[in-house]
Amino acid sequence: MERVGIALLGYGTVGSGVGRLLSESAEEIRLATGKDVYLRRVLELKPDRQALVPDGVQVTTQFADVVGDPDVQIVVELIGGIEPARDFQLASLKAGKAVVTANKQLLSQHGAELLQTAEDNGTFLRFEASAVGAVPVIKVLRESLAAAEVTNIMGIVNGTTNYILSAMAQSGAEYAPTLKKAQELGFAEADPTEDVSGKDAAAKMAILSSIAFHSRVTLADVEHEGIGGITDIDVAHGKALGLVPKLLGVAQLIDGRINARVYPCFIPAGHPLAGVSGAYNAVFLESETFDKIMLFGPGAGGTPTASAVIGDVISVVNTARGGYVRNCVCYKDLGFYPNDEVVSRFYLRVQVVDESGVLATIAGIFGDQGVSIHSMQQIGEEETAQLVLVFHPVKEAAFFRALERISALPVVRGTPSVIRMEAYDAR
Amino acid sequence: MERVGIALLGYGTVGSGVGRLLSESAEEIRLATGKDVYLRRVLELKPDRQALVPDGVQVTTQFADVVGDPDVQIVVELIGGIEPARDFQLASLKAGKAVVTANKQLLSQHGAELLQTAEDNGTFLRFEASAVGAVPVIKVLRESLAAAEVTNIMGIVNGTTNYILSAMAQSGAEYAPTLKKAQELGFAEADPTEDVSGKDAAAKMAILSSIAFHSRVTLADVEHEGIGGITDIDVAHGKALGLVPKLLGVAQLIDGRINARVYPCFIPAGHPLAGVSGAYNAVFLESETFDKIMLFGPGAGGTPTASAVIGDVISVVNTARGGYVRNCVCYKDLGFYPNDEVVSRFYLRVQVVDESGVLATIAGIFGDQGVSIHSMQQIGEEETAQLVLVFHPVKEAAFFRALERISALPVVRGTPSVIRMEAYDAR
Repeated sequence: MERVGIALLGYGTVGSGVGRLLSESAEEIRLATGKDVYLRRVLELKPDRQALVPDGVQVTTQFADVVGDPDVQIVVELIGGIEPARDFQLASLKAGKAVVTANKQLLSQHGAELLQTAEDNGTFLRFEASAVGAVPVIKVLRESLAAAEVTNIMGIVNGTTNYILSAMAQSGAEYAPTLKKAQELGFAEADPTEDVSGKDAAAKMAILSSIAFHSRVTLADVEHEGIGGITDIDVAHGKALGLVPKLLGVAQLIDGRINARVYPCFIPAGHPLAGVSGAYNAVFLESETFDKIMLFGPGAGGTPTASAVIGDVISVVNTARGGYVRNCVCYKDLGFYPNDEVVSRFYLRVQVVDESGVLATIAGIFGDQGVSIHSMQQIGEEETAQLVLVFHPVKEAAFFRALERISALPVVRGTPSVIRMEAYDAR
Repeated sequence: MERVGIALLGYGTVGSGVGRLLSESAEEIRLATGKDVYLRRVLELKPDRQALVPDGVQVTTQFADVVGDPDVQIVVELIGGIEPARDFQLASLKAGKAVVTANKQLLSQHGAELLQTAEDNGTFLRFEASAVGAVPVIKVLRESLAAAEVTNIMGIVNGTTNYILSAMAQSGAEYAPTLKKAQELGFAEADPTEDVSGKDAAAKMAILSSIAFHSRVTLADVEHEGIGGITDIDVAHGKALGLVPKLLGVAQLIDGRINARVYPCFIPAGHPLAGVSGAYNAVFLESETFDKIMLFGPGAGGTPTASAVIGDVISVVNTARGGYVRNCVCYKDLGFYPNDEVVSRFYLRVQVVDESGVLATIAGIFGDQGVSIHSMQQIGEEETAQLVLVFHPVKEAAFFRALERISALPVVRGTPSVIRMEAYDAR
């Protein structure tokens, strides 16, 4: 039986998971590919990780040993970050080896260069694990839905923030102690910035949008806003309105152009995405062709991510026999739709001095900008009142112009809370 | 550019949808396959449907015209039923043509013969649209998750029953008027037996189980129970317990054997499957490797089903260049785990004469069979009381032995309502 040698760059949690699955699922992989796919080399600098590599597999600290080995046909890059991962991937592709990776930072910033290099060298670059862990959304978009025009993507693509927001919604607790608890339980990093800022989610949305819309979207094209401003008060008001807080990546085709962003928002409690709680991820796709499809699963974790890597390895082995799955799917150049022009629904909470005429002033300012109020609720406190407003869909620029004027009013206390509302029609 | 001719057998809702997508998405399909995939022939007996076929496509009423055409490379069978669909598929495969189909009846009863014929003739049989419409669960199981051992499948795989149960849960209405309304709105057939009996779901679960467990499961192996016995009273009691009624296909590996069934059950309101309402479908998969994955989308409808057919066509075109995706994935022979031995959780509602000692008698009978009660609630009426019981997990045989004795008690009125509880630990 023909043999296919795999090299793993990095033998941490995911790498060792891939090593284990290659061995434990050897028979399944043989049956799925008709070939003997085996772990041939591991590049790993740390001695404690090197010690975990199974006997018979060559361990090295030199990339030259990997790229120079003609029996390595697939290089699995799990180092992460930009360099040296980019160099290693480019060199592997130029040597005619296929590359499988989980590296979202690299793909979302240098995807074009890497995919073109794969294409130029007649080989493959696969990156399922870079987007939503074990959930094969890239394969589904590229293959099953290749002929469908996707018009909307809503993604819960970051487990840490979904864990925190789910916990806040369930317990009613504030953000800071919930983050602290998530860190203690291992659901958030010691430095959680990449996750809670929305940047991690933005990288994944760049990758997903590129595939879904067949047009290049990089990390820099995806504006992102984090969850640090979400308060327990807003979560409670949302709950009373039947809404659940989520950090969503939202990418849509508007007038043939792309708008892709990451922001915290409220979605109706009955929406399929609302049931995605804890550290789970999900991607919700809309198209006239297939209506709505959602893929749900673990967004991270060593074994689930390793499972996605193995799925890509199998795909490469099966495709390499001569099958055809394009590397470069960004054959359009759609351009971007400006955020200001996007029509959104907003929730707003603003604290005001409780005196007569305040409501009329605020309603008047929104009216002047053509911003129509759907509902308003005043919750009295001692000297100040909370106003909770929900708006009809409105161009973002008009809403934020009105909000700027309202924030500057002397009767307004503190900073207003603004949260977008998505999938509102699905209530 | 190389051309690939498609023949459609049947030009009804799905067939005409496939015809339309082949034309509208021609460019996307070219980019996804590198070939020109075009509609060459249509087999259709009805003149009104023949009239819908685009100009330039050859329409025939004779299958011989299709199978004898060397330029037809892929036959898409959308006639449904066993014969002549089986004959047409076998003849097409024997002529070396690939077959793509949405025919769940045929696949769930004659899948082995058809797949073997494909394999023997070096061609392909694809049937994504036979299971969950537009949702590519078969491709995900076969390719992305090929190396993972799936241990549990829970599927909402019938849109009609999900529509009815969702509507009952929302409105509190009874079964019969809800079914009637579903029929008026086009969500249920004039003769809804195939759907409400669970038989349609059983056929789909046979297909999904075969793929997931790599072992043959036919329609006859999947016991099914319908939703006709679900009452508004039980839906209301379930709601009070935080539970939602669903018709689920449940397939699991127990001690290395398969148990696959379809029955109505309660699931916790917070479970991802609980958010699947209306006519939507979803398949929830569990594995130690990937943890939990759920795929959600439309289970039926002309365009979504056509989209799945196109996905299969693209897969066949790409694989035919020499790539490798096995037809026969049932390489194990796992056998079946008897229903009696399965450990399940039950909800039970029983109407009893309200006299002293009844509770003790019932609790005693369950105790004698080793069936442990988790909670019991008595809801008084005039002369009779409703007992609502929830049990700890128990072997089904023991539960039904106790239930038989209880049903025969002179103090019991009417037939007790028994509903299984799934995903209970997910509350």
